[in-house]
Amino acid sequence: MNMSRTEERSRERLVVVGGDAAGMSAASQARRLRGPGELEIVAFERGHFTSFSACGIPYWVGGDVPERDRLIARSPEEHRARDIDLRMRTEVVEIDVEGARVRARDLDAGTESWTSYDKLVIATGARPIRPDLPGVDAPGVHGVQTLDDGQALLDTLSATEGRRAVVVGAGYIGVEMAEALINRGYEVTVVNRGREPMSTLDPDMGRLVHQAMTGLGITMVDDAEVTALRTGADGRVRAVATKDGEYPADVVVLGIGVRPETELAKAAGLPLGAHGGLLTDLAMRVRGHENIWAGGDCVEVLDLVSGSLRHIPLGTHANKHGQVIGANVGGGYATFPGVVGTAVSKVCDLEIARTGLREKDADRAGLRYVAVTIESTSRAGYYPGAAPMTVKMLAERRTGRLLGVQIVGREGAGKRVDVAAVALTAGMTVERMTALDLGYAPPFSPVWDPILVAARKAVTAVRSSA
Amino acid sequence: MNMSRTEERSRERLVVVGGDAAGMSAASQARRLRGPGELEIVAFERGHFTSFSACGIPYWVGGDVPERDRLIARSPEEHRARDIDLRMRTEVVEIDVEGARVRARDLDAGTESWTSYDKLVIATGARPIRPDLPGVDAPGVHGVQTLDDGQALLDTLSATEGRRAVVVGAGYIGVEMAEALINRGYEVTVVNRGREPMSTLDPDMGRLVHQAMTGLGITMVDDAEVTALRTGADGRVRAVATKDGEYPADVVVLGIGVRPETELAKAAGLPLGAHGGLLTDLAMRVRGHENIWAGGDCVEVLDLVSGSLRHIPLGTHANKHGQVIGANVGGGYATFPGVVGTAVSKVCDLEIARTGLREKDADRAGLRYVAVTIESTSRAGYYPGAAPMTVKMLAERRTGRLLGVQIVGREGAGKRVDVAAVALTAGMTVERMTALDLGYAPPFSPVWDPILVAARKAVTAVRSSA
Repeated sequence: MNMSRTEERSRERLVVVGGDAAGMSAASQARRLRGPGELEIVAFERGHFTSFSACGIPYWVGGDVPERDRLIARSPEEHRARDIDLRMRTEVVEIDVEGARVRARDLDAGTESWTSYDKLVIATGARPIRPDLPGVDAPGVHGVQTLDDGQALLDTLSATEGRRAVVVGAGYIGVEMAEALINRGYEVTVVNRGREPMSTLDPDMGRLVHQAMTGLGITMVDDAEVTALRTGADGRVRAVATKDGEYPADVVVLGIGVRPETELAKAAGLPLGAHGGLLTDLAMRVRGHENIWAGGDCVEVLDLVSGSLRHIPLGTHANKHGQVIGANVGGGYATFPGVVGTAVSKVCDLEIARTGLREKDADRAGLRYVAVTIESTSRAGYYPGAAPMTVKMLAERRTGRLLGVQIVGREGAGKRVDVAAVALTAGMTVERMTALDLGYAPPFSPVWDPILVAARKAVTAVRSSA
Repeated sequence: MNMSRTEERSRERLVVVGGDAAGMSAASQARRLRGPGELEIVAFERGHFTSFSACGIPYWVGGDVPERDRLIARSPEEHRARDIDLRMRTEVVEIDVEGARVRARDLDAGTESWTSYDKLVIATGARPIRPDLPGVDAPGVHGVQTLDDGQALLDTLSATEGRRAVVVGAGYIGVEMAEALINRGYEVTVVNRGREPMSTLDPDMGRLVHQAMTGLGITMVDDAEVTALRTGADGRVRAVATKDGEYPADVVVLGIGVRPETELAKAAGLPLGAHGGLLTDLAMRVRGHENIWAGGDCVEVLDLVSGSLRHIPLGTHANKHGQVIGANVGGGYATFPGVVGTAVSKVCDLEIARTGLREKDADRAGLRYVAVTIESTSRAGYYPGAAPMTVKMLAERRTGRLLGVQIVGREGAGKRVDVAAVALTAGMTVERMTALDLGYAPPFSPVWDPILVAARKAVTAVRSSA
């Protein structure tokens, strides 16, 4: 660039650490508000890709998404075309808060250099939990956090003749990968530490997921502690061993969850919360640091229902954080008020959704509550395709405030949780919810939407518990 | 019944006029709260059926619902088994408010008698608008308000060889009947008074419905005033005549809408609103009458967004009214706070939804607003089955308060309107909506749900209009 010293000094430099959803949303939004003459943007990404949908990996592996690049929302070239100086395969290895600079290593060249910043965005994401087990690094054992992970798993699947897959973990990643492997024609075993899959639900609702997964031909191994991944003479994985038995495996997928990737932030002395995530204010500014922001899977967010901080790695939050950070960095103003804990997923045709608090969350928050469960259908009972669904609802005693909803059902079940998510955000009581004017027509809902049926039952429970 | 005079006097008598959703819900709920020893319940229904789903008739006619009785939620016998003295084919022809009694005519026997009441519920529903046109009563011309209407239409369809159907009216009933007749293999023409179908939407959104219906092979005749229904030598309908042309018809369906059925209430001196519906308080008690309640399609309801009264004939409201009335009559307490104007419908695979105010409603209410329209998809763009949808959002200037949402799209579009319905109920601003924690996973939504995309655009519009 041909630029005079004066021009160089007159513009600020924004440095972004991490080139995925939160970081690149922040960079893009800041660029929209401030042109390259005002703001220089340098972004570091240690991997090969930017702005990809990690949530889409199970569907790529399962074959629903035909090719990797469909999962990439914006390529490095597209970012660069917007005057973002994006440095791929370059890992930030130190943040010098005092000196307002970062040290970055070019992973291919092996060289390092310092880059100073006026404003810093930390968007280092999360790293998958990899248990410290014998054999965990053997060929045939795969995580599914990055596109490289997904490609490696696909390579294993196409190179392996055996059709036995074991998924370790039965949370969102675990059940979605179980579906992916079923779709690929594998015999799937899910080895789960808990009694029921989907510990993000209460056990009674998790039980329904368990039954449905068994019905899909998935072997569910519950209450299982994995002790080792057994390998064969060729060094490849052959089985998953637990205290109670061994499960033969031609491929193993680890879906145990993730932790905030905050080693860098910790070393820099930035404030971390109980879950290991960065602590920010509502404008996503790192607490106590005027010129540092953080967002995405590396931060903790306020749970508006319980008032506590949580770590919820989810692309939709990361994108929102990025927008908020970009607005603030770009001279505007925006806040991220918090979450209510909404999540939706599916295993084949089973839809699973939740928002707000589970029973144990409410207990932990010191809330007294009633919990009710109802059965209803997605459409009018007489309309073709009316599918059963189970809705569980928690409401606070005395006040009747909605605390949480969990749904397990078939087509049309999952996104109904959004009604409860908005009601939670608004602090509605279940009594108020019974009168909600939800869309009704026979192809879309029974005359009483399942959410309303649950709310009515919750009202009765609140009254009799008062 | 073998009952002493003392017992007869000690219990109250509830009289219900109209045996459909609102009336029988009220009766059932009252019975749940007060047993037959405390409360006598007499219900009059002039037709052959109780508690049926009028909204389901198009799907029965279209063949999605195989038989009539599937549309009946509860039969007369089931009501009677709950100690409700239900008198079928008995029409109340006079309400004597002063004397607290009703005069009823047995339509088969032709006899009349008076029945006194302690409490009265008026649930007389709505009557279809039948234009005063030559030929409107000819064989082959059908309304679709009652099960008898539906059966008569089905009889005509099976007796008629011709395959040309004309639907007069392009509101909910009109478009749903167009779908039903398409499904039956008819060539369908829809004759519409307006420029676009679905006048419950703004014209720009109605245009999308127009295009989709044309794409389904439906002939759309716009801006058309029907002047006569032409009949043949046999007296049967042969064509629909408008000022601009004639449209051959082997069968004609009238889907012009309904008016509150309140002749009886009017004659009794009960208060009616500008739309001809009964006026009630929030407990659904008729204004100025301590012991008379009304609900369902014969009342006007409060629109919480505009603050005005509206007539919205819809089964889901009728059921809620019935519950509220039953609770109050039964000695409990409940209110119906009002509506936000949510409605959802479909024509084949096109989903159509709305809530809150259209542009002209906002104008009429004296509100200044911004209107934005966005295109998005039902699922992540890379996920199979991601279907396009158009979302229009209105927000108040300066305050940014959400005023209304309209959605036209394919599978997964319609029920998304519920998010906006709850947000309207809570009085949310579009700014607040941008941070809503809605369920996200690739099979269910793009990373920014279409409602959030619209809210973000609305925020920008509100800011630049301030």
